[in-house]
Amino acid sequence: MDGEVRSVTGKVLALLGAFTPACPELTLSELARRAGLSLATAHRRVAELVAWGALERGADGRYRVGLRLWEVASLAPRGLGLREAAMPFLEDLYEVTHENVQLAVREGLELVFVERIAGRKAVPVWTRVGGRFALHATGVGLALLAHAPVEVQEEVLGSPLQAYTEKTVTNPARLREMLAAVRRTGYAVSDGQVTTDAVSVAAPVRDGEGTVIAAVSLVVHASGAHPATLAPLVQAAARGIGRACGSPGGARVFPREPIAR
Amino acid sequence: MDGEVRSVTGKVLALLGAFTPACPELTLSELARRAGLSLATAHRRVAELVAWGALERGADGRYRVGLRLWEVASLAPRGLGLREAAMPFLEDLYEVTHENVQLAVREGLELVFVERIAGRKAVPVWTRVGGRFALHATGVGLALLAHAPVEVQEEVLGSPLQAYTEKTVTNPARLREMLAAVRRTGYAVSDGQVTTDAVSVAAPVRDGEGTVIAAVSLVVHASGAHPATLAPLVQAAARGIGRACGSPGGARVFPREPIAR
Repeated sequence: MDGEVRSVTGKVLALLGAFTPACPELTLSELARRAGLSLATAHRRVAELVAWGALERGADGRYRVGLRLWEVASLAPRGLGLREAAMPFLEDLYEVTHENVQLAVREGLELVFVERIAGRKAVPVWTRVGGRFALHATGVGLALLAHAPVEVQEEVLGSPLQAYTEKTVTNPARLREMLAAVRRTGYAVSDGQVTTDAVSVAAPVRDGEGTVIAAVSLVVHASGAHPATLAPLVQAAARGIGRACGSPGGARVFPREPIAR
Repeated sequence: MDGEVRSVTGKVLALLGAFTPACPELTLSELARRAGLSLATAHRRVAELVAWGALERGADGRYRVGLRLWEVASLAPRGLGLREAAMPFLEDLYEVTHENVQLAVREGLELVFVERIAGRKAVPVWTRVGGRFALHATGVGLALLAHAPVEVQEEVLGSPLQAYTEKTVTNPARLREMLAAVRRTGYAVSDGQVTTDAVSVAAPVRDGEGTVIAAVSLVVHASGAHPATLAPLVQAAARGIGRACGSPGGARVFPREPIAR
């Protein structure tokens, strides 16, 4: 069985990877099953993880990801590092619009939301900080995909593309045209392609060398939205974030290619 | 040597723990040295961590904490979970004051900042999201310490207490009086005790059972600050956050006692 031949490092990582947004709290037996470990092995490893603070055991006996792991993870340049550099610009975007502001990076063939600021009256969106999403539907996703290496684009466009609404573009040829438009205009628009009532306007964030390292977006109510009017605002924020990342002491961010898992 | 008898889990965790706010990027030999591992062992483990995405290797050959670890860590109830529940209330505090807003939890004998919103014109503060700080000096620290178990209070007050400014209170008897005042009034004030030009007003966040799980603060310029006027604002935010955490689907947060490391 897989669990028997895996290295101990692999077992430890499998235990950490057992936690998902849908299941952030797990019993020991759930942890063992999801990690593909025997109960005895899981018990031993989990005790070590709890002692270090990578996991925490609640009063209910269930395990959760621990604050100590979160502290270490907060050092990830593409997580909180990028977020810290971007925050003043995201706050500015939020203050002048009171709409949803999002910051995302590409991780392989998907995107990960690094920050989200949501106005109370803003249109509801599905995003969660630390959560993943497909690249072909959202504004930030299109901005990231438009500037991804060709092989990444081809792999995404060659895979089955989920339709979230009737407006989601799943035709590869049409998506290629949209990505070309993103590169030409400097911003991406997702109009009702994730939820019918929302329009997202996104711009790529570039580091000092011009490499796209992230994307920032404004997500507004579809009724009365003027993407072309919002675009300069988002593009200016993206430029500011890129500058802040490239400055001394700023976050150093490298895009990461998909890897076999 | 320690590295030889440690379990593989311990070695993996030592590699992750090698990254600190001061050293978020490390070469392989730095990683090996800090983790107390041979270069060969470190090389093998690091390769596994990179393959999984727990670490990332930059174009410069240095290693950083990876986005995949950050994704898993974002599931920590006391990290982003708490932060997500608190964010609307922190945004409100920021909007009406445009000062520094901070959210922290106690981790053993220190505090960890879980969120910070800083106005551009706000007084400069030292905090970093994911960063640690002593409990005896800041507003959030005093609010957390006042409601910590007696043994935690005694261990903190019995340790050498750093003086950050001439106004930092390091006398245990005086600190005990201050903690009693925090419990009586429901809020904590740190006036020039971390930096001379800043005043912090903090309030404890309680879960549904009344347990203090976090603290929220407003940090303003010392000149013209009226802590008693700011306190109700901070206390109201703290109550809102506590309610959001206790609600169905809200973050479930457990305080964690100090453990031997």
